[in-house]
This record gives sequence, C-alpha cells and structure tokens, in this order.
Amino acid sequence: MTNYYDASRKEWLSRPQIVAGVMTGTSLDGIDIAIAEFEQQGKHNVFRLLGTYFTPYSTYLHDKILNVTEKKRPVSDIAELQVELAEVYATAILSACNITEIPISSIKSIGIHGQTVWHNPPGSRKKTAATLQLANGSTLAQILQIPVVSDFRSADIAAGGQGAPLVPAFDAAFLRHDDYGVCTLNIGGIANITLLPARSSSAPVSAFDTGPGNMLIDAASLLFFGKKFDDAGKFSQAGICIPGLLKICLEHNFLQKAPPKSTGREMFGRQFLDKLLSSIRLPATPGEDVIRTVTEFTAESIAMNIRLFGGGVRQVIASGGGIRNPTLMNCLMQKLGDIELITSDDFGVPTDFKEAMCFAYIAYLTLGGLPGNIPSVTGAQRQCVLGSISTP
Amino acid sequence: MTNYYDASRKEWLSRPQIVAGVMTGTSLDGIDIAIAEFEQQGKHNVFRLLGTYFTPYSTYLHDKILNVTEKKRPVSDIAELQVELAEVYATAILSACNITEIPISSIKSIGIHGQTVWHNPPGSRKKTAATLQLANGSTLAQILQIPVVSDFRSADIAAGGQGAPLVPAFDAAFLRHDDYGVCTLNIGGIANITLLPARSSSAPVSAFDTGPGNMLIDAASLLFFGKKFDDAGKFSQAGICIPGLLKICLEHNFLQKAPPKSTGREMFGRQFLDKLLSSIRLPATPGEDVIRTVTEFTAESIAMNIRLFGGGVRQVIASGGGIRNPTLMNCLMQKLGDIELITSDDFGVPTDFKEAMCFAYIAYLTLGGLPGNIPSVTGAQRQCVLGSISTP
Repeated sequence: MTNYYDASRKEWLSRPQIVAGVMTGTSLDGIDIAIAEFEQQGKHNVFRLLGTYFTPYSTYLHDKILNVTEKKRPVSDIAELQVELAEVYATAILSACNITEIPISSIKSIGIHGQTVWHNPPGSRKKTAATLQLANGSTLAQILQIPVVSDFRSADIAAGGQGAPLVPAFDAAFLRHDDYGVCTLNIGGIANITLLPARSSSAPVSAFDTGPGNMLIDAASLLFFGKKFDDAGKFSQAGICIPGLLKICLEHNFLQKAPPKSTGREMFGRQFLDKLLSSIRLPATPGEDVIRTVTEFTAESIAMNIRLFGGGVRQVIASGGGIRNPTLMNCLMQKLGDIELITSDDFGVPTDFKEAMCFAYIAYLTLGGLPGNIPSVTGAQRQCVLGSISTP
Repeated sequence: MTNYYDASRKEWLSRPQIVAGVMTGTSLDGIDIAIAEFEQQGKHNVFRLLGTYFTPYSTYLHDKILNVTEKKRPVSDIAELQVELAEVYATAILSACNITEIPISSIKSIGIHGQTVWHNPPGSRKKTAATLQLANGSTLAQILQIPVVSDFRSADIAAGGQGAPLVPAFDAAFLRHDDYGVCTLNIGGIANITLLPARSSSAPVSAFDTGPGNMLIDAASLLFFGKKFDDAGKFSQAGICIPGLLKICLEHNFLQKAPPKSTGREMFGRQFLDKLLSSIRLPATPGEDVIRTVTEFTAESIAMNIRLFGGGVRQVIASGGGIRNPTLMNCLMQKLGDIELITSDDFGVPTDFKEAMCFAYIAYLTLGGLPGNIPSVTGAQRQCVLGSISTP
C-alpha cells in the first residue's frame, strides 16, 4: 500500500534524532524522563543517553488517577486527566531540559507512554480488548510545539496482541549480541525475562514471566518487620535458608511450566506466603530465615527458567528494583553458574529509566515508519507502527 | 522549527486525495460517512463528493455512550468504547464503500470526529479546559490498514480556543465568493451563522449564534401536538402569526447583542416558551398560531442578525434540519429581502453530511501539514494542525 509518509520517514532516519521519552508507571510515583539520541548505523540502531529526570506526581494527580482506576467516575475526570497529565509532562520536560542543559529546541519528538488506567488484552475476562493510557498528545504538542507520539499499546492490541511487553523491542535493538544469546531480566513485583538470540540466529525473541520478583520478599518483610521491602537485602543477609520451606516453594508447578506464561499477585502474593508459613513453626522461626528462604526461592525460580528455557544464553542483563537487593543478586549469581550476570546500567541504560528510554525509542521508530512491537513477544498477528502522532 | 514531515506533506498535497470523513453527533443517532476527493488547484482547494452513507448506532452503543455521558462509570467503559466505536466505524466504512462502489483501496486517509462525551472549553465552569471524542485512531488504522486522523478539537483548546466550531474551515475553503461576502447558516436546535467575507477582502471569518433554530418550533410542536418537530412545516403553514406574541419574542435582548455570542437551551428552550404562553389566552389560541409565530420569530432573529452583523453579505447558504421546514425557509427568504437564500445542497454539500465532509477535509489538511482551525472563529491564539495521526 502506498504510504504518504515515505519521504519524511526516510529523511527522519537519515540523521541522528534526539527524542524524549516519558514514562509514568502503575505505581503512580511520578514521571520518568529520558532524553536520548538515536541513529541508524548500518543495519543497526544505536543510542546515546543524554539525560534523565524524575519528578513525583502531585497528591492531586495521584489521587485523581487512583480514583479513576478504582471507582466509577464521571467522564470529565478522564477528559481533564488527559489534559492535566499533558500539562505536567510539559513542565517536567522543560525542567529536565533545564537540569540536564539540553536545549528544548534540540528535541525533535516526544514519546509519551501515558498513565495506564485500564489494560485488558485479548483473551481476558471482559469481551472487548482495550487499553487506555491517559495524556493527550495534541495538548503536549501544542504546549511545547514539538511532535508527540502517544498511545503505543492500542495498535498491538488491535492486531491481536497483548499490547505488552514493549520493552523487548528496545532490548532486541540494543542489547542483543552478534554471536551468542543473552537474556534481559526485569525484577519488579514479578520477574520476567526476554530471550534475545544471537543476531546471527533466526530464532525469535521471546519473553515470559519466571515467577516472583520482589513480591514474596516484600510480603515477608512487611509481615515480619513492618517494612515495605528488604532494604539493601539486610534481612535476608541475616537469615539462614530453611531447606524444607525452600523445597515446598520449588514444588510450585509454575516454575517448570513451558513458556509462554505469565503470573501475578494472585499466584505469588500474600496468600502463597501464608500457605508457606502454615508449614513451619512460628514464632520460633526467625523472620530473617523466612525472608532468606523466599529470596533463595526467587533467585532459583529465575535461574531455573533461564536454564530450562533460555536456549543456552551466556549473559543475563538485569534491571528493576530487585537489582538493589545484594542478597538476591548474589544468590542469583551463584545459581546461574557459568552464565554471566550484569545490570542494564553496565550498558548505559539506567534501570530506573529503561522504560522511558524504550518509549523514546519507539517514538523514534514510529516517526521513521518502523514497527515497534515484536509479534513473537506480544502475540500480535503482525508488526505494527505503534502510536499516534500529534504535530503542532 | 524544522519539521520532519515537510517532504511527505508536500507530496500529499501534490495530487488529488480521497479521504473518508466520519461524524457521530451528540444526538447519538448514528454514523455519517462522506467520501470525498480533495485537491489543491492554484491558491484554492477543491472537493468532489464521491459518496455518502449513514448507519444508525446499535442500542448497545447508544446506551453505553449515554451512560458514560450522564453517569459515573468505571474507566473500562471509556476504554472499551474507544475500541468499539473504532470497530463499528470500520464496518460502516466498508459498507459505505460497498454501497457507493468506491474501492476501499482508493481511500488514503480517514478523518474521524469521534463521539463527544465531554466538551468544556476555556472560560467555562470547571477549571481544566478539555474535550473528549471517543474512538481510537490506532484501532481503526489497524483494522482497515489506512492512516487515520482523530481528536480534532484538543489542539485548538490547548491553544486557548473553544475547540469549536470547526466547520467554518470547510465553509471558508469551499463556500467563499471571490467578490462578495456570503454567510453560511446552520439551523439546528440553535441557529448559527458563519460570515465569509469576499476572498478579496482582508476581513476575518467569524461565526456566532443568532438565537433559536428548531428549538422553539420543536418545543411548541411537542406541547400542542405531541410531535417532536413541525414535520414539513405543516403546523406553522396552517397557523396565523400572533403579532403581540411576536413582538414579545423580538424584545429578547440576545437578538441585537453584538457578536461574538452564543446561546443554548437555557435561553430559548421550554422555559422561554412557557413564559411566552403565559401572555396569551389558552386554549382559545390554536397551537398552529403559536407555532407559526415562533417560526416567524426564528426566521426574523436569523435575518436580523444577518442584516445587523453580516457586513453586507449577498447570499445565505443554509444547512441543518431546519432547511426541511418550508414555512421557516419561506419566512426567512421574505425577511432576507435582497439577500439570496440557498441551501448547501446547491453547492454539492448534502446538509446531512456537511460535518462528515468537514472532518474528511480537516484530515486532508492535517496530512498536508496545514492548520484546520480559524482563530478568529474559535478564539485560539494561533492556527494549529488539528488531530493525531495513526498509521498502520
């Protein structure tokens, strides 16, 4: 099909382009901004990270978003949030430029993920597959007078995909190795991996959940010590693994289930912890020992999946909050044996800004007329150019 | 500011382009589609209407939209409607192509207005100016594999405008006369006019409400005869104007108020009718006479505004439901005197599809990188490229 964009897309890809990526996650903590330069070099794309910036949400925005996701609200809330989010993004981008000393005029486009308030991919409980990320592209484009790309997930869902994960596109572009397979690992509440076969291989990129990430460790820390997480891995460091308990954990049938697979709070949340604790004597067992045990379990569930389904990867590139837990990382390193464990920071991708960088990159692809989804990862029937473009 | 689109925009504008426009109005009756070809010829654009199509909303969609506008609803309703509307648009466009025998492959873009569920321009009661037209551009672009332009009103509002009216851009492009001023008139519930100075003039295009359109006639028809409107002007045709009642109507201070001005149901709705009726003897007065009188009033309020503020226009081009009321049109013709009254159909713009044609045209402009708003009409601080572009 002839495409009216062809001329501009070619021009866009012909030189380095600076793009700002804006991510606002479901934790509702605030706005991550990454400003990066992207360039086609031969067959590959390269990036240069120029600056990052974080600013928290106001209580007003935090509460309004939470209200919209949890309660029945008038449609005016949605309409206003679309504009209000674009306005705070604009302010945040200007602050980012100020602090990083990157001239706003050098930014050629902005990729905004928007605030997810609904995500119901095909195959789930409700009939109509749909996703909604708030923040109006036209509003932001008008305020900053810069082209904006927004709504990255709808196209993939329309093509039959899950609309997620999209970060593997970034991983596949920048973290693949020419000669051997590597794997990216994100340790959030849940842990998930993306398998990146060698560039020389014809094997597809794939991604799946391995089991708990920080979820069980956080739940145990809260239960025993009233802390939201095991800060710097101190609780687990002070504990001793309980072999009987670990054994019960490792019997969970999710671990050896063949991918594609995904999990969530319903499988490895507080309920699972309560079930575990019913098998040991409390309060005789120190909390540190329980936390140590679930930390070992978390590491082993990740390592086991990589060994079983990793196709012989030689390197694991970790990101996410879990990389700040040295006990977890040490456990994982031991269990991975010969497979090297490094963090995404080692590749110039600060873990806290990886998603913001990803959406800057997908905006770069979209303006270049290139698809941003990986069908073997999202389940889409085809590659799609992701997002909608608003120009001033 | 350099613009990555320049090359493609030039190419887009270099040849005739067929664009489908999709309008779904606040009456929630259904989907209007107009397929038209647009082309730059010298300094002006020309259009050729290729086909039109209407299909009603399903009860399911009608009710779901009404629920969202009137009640507090979960955010999933909005997310689903975005997708469901795009899906029914896709089906409707395919049907339109079938019936009009226009190959879908000839359609180079689709401009979708979307279903307005919120419109709160600057200066109104709530703090955040915002507008929300539902229907997801990416979803439709993926289904039909055609670039879609959507969300036409947000940019104008972000630039300080009212986000409306946008139809004057269409009028200014296609209905202006080289040598003398003309005026377009839309007789909906409210009547509004757009003044189009001669192309040779430097005077700006302006638009404002003149007073009631069908609103008072409809209210009286319902009250006296239980009919939603005065079908073919039969009630008014059978009645005689009551001079004392007409005099009271004409004393309304909105009529001679200088533009810009706008009005609504609160000024010329049922309450106004009740006030009028309190000044006459009922039931001695026939309903037909009352309807005749408010018809005369409606015609006179339009004509008076054109005489007072029309800057000497020579021609009035009427559209909207009111043009199907011959009594109203005859009254108006008499009251306009030397000023010619014709309908937009005479210009090849079927009145029922004028808005759909308008959004096809604005999509054409957007893909050509051209602004679609008229700041002297919307109040925006600047011209804006309207809408967001989703490509497959």
